[in-house]
Amino acid sequence: MSAMIRIVSVEHGLSPACEIQKALAHTDYQVATTSAENLFTDIAGTHPDAILLPLSLPDCIAVIGRLRSLGPHAIILIAQHDEPLAQALAAGADDYLLAPVSAPLLHHRIHHAITYQRHATTIHELKSQLDAAEAARVRAESASQDFCRDLSHDLNNTLTGMIMTAEMLLMEKPSERTTRVLQEMIELADEIDSSIKTRRAAMSNQP
Amino acid sequence: MSAMIRIVSVEHGLSPACEIQKALAHTDYQVATTSAENLFTDIAGTHPDAILLPLSLPDCIAVIGRLRSLGPHAIILIAQHDEPLAQALAAGADDYLLAPVSAPLLHHRIHHAITYQRHATTIHELKSQLDAAEAARVRAESASQDFCRDLSHDLNNTLTGMIMTAEMLLMEKPSERTTRVLQEMIELADEIDSSIKTRRAAMSNQP
Repeated sequence: MSAMIRIVSVEHGLSPACEIQKALAHTDYQVATTSAENLFTDIAGTHPDAILLPLSLPDCIAVIGRLRSLGPHAIILIAQHDEPLAQALAAGADDYLLAPVSAPLLHHRIHHAITYQRHATTIHELKSQLDAAEAARVRAESASQDFCRDLSHDLNNTLTGMIMTAEMLLMEKPSERTTRVLQEMIELADEIDSSIKTRRAAMSNQP
Repeated sequence: MSAMIRIVSVEHGLSPACEIQKALAHTDYQVATTSAENLFTDIAGTHPDAILLPLSLPDCIAVIGRLRSLGPHAIILIAQHDEPLAQALAAGADDYLLAPVSAPLLHHRIHHAITYQRHATTIHELKSQLDAAEAARVRAESASQDFCRDLSHDLNNTLTGMIMTAEMLLMEKPSERTTRVLQEMIELADEIDSSIKTRRAAMSNQP
């Protein structure tokens, strides 16, 4: 993961923000603290990768819901043993840690939750790319079919003209030598016609 | 998520397997229990979506590492408060729950961990599909060019033969009418050749 991971830790009452600051010191993470009051202004400006949120925050479920709708950041709860986690996770939080926070566990869960959010973003992007690529493939395949159909059609008209010209002269009973040459030319024109048909059939059968 | 989620819960010593069974009763999950001894045989046969593993299992870190290498199943640890989680998570476990297990939390974390594992699989599949679509587009784009090139190649000998046949007869000074027809046929043969060349050139200049 990139070295520029931005984390916002929300301070509230007896929340272990200081403990978290210490746990994340000497890491590649860029950690900022904020208050519940300034949280939404702050994240609008900084677009953090992860937000650490004390579950003791007033209206925490509503805050989580609003945060979830704002971007692909990871939301990690810092909870006390007796706090109810399930509702907060159902509201959109990605993960949780119980206080006192263990530094290695905090690192691991931040990494995991950011990866989860990035995967979701990646899937969304890949689906868009796949839709575009499929549309381009369909366009290219139909352009190719149209091209070959039009070319075959043009060549067919010319060949028909050629054969008709030869056949009209043949009806006038020309010399034996001319008759032989004209018949040979008609055969060659038929050969060209069947070459075109074979090539088109081969193209239609391609995977 | 589909109704056929398969979960394997590993029983060990005082592990809360019974508690887990109770928490997952009346859900859409299909829950089976196994022992540490039978774990690998069992999952080879059933391909579960998630494995619930007591962290108290002997050699748990090694078991997690081996499970991780075996498939895209989610690995969720059931831990006591005093057990070290970070190393087990670093070894490849997706998530953890502290005993006593809360039923809503267990449901949520199973769902989350399975989604996490499925995201990785989905990304892999989408990338393959994207590569296939890109390759098909490139093939379709070059198909028209290939068609022209192959057709030019196929027709070249026939057209040359046709023109030479007509020119040989022209050298014998046939009747004015025959001369006109032969000249017309030579023109038509040239037209076929130049039709293909014009189309190829127009296509190369397309954006």
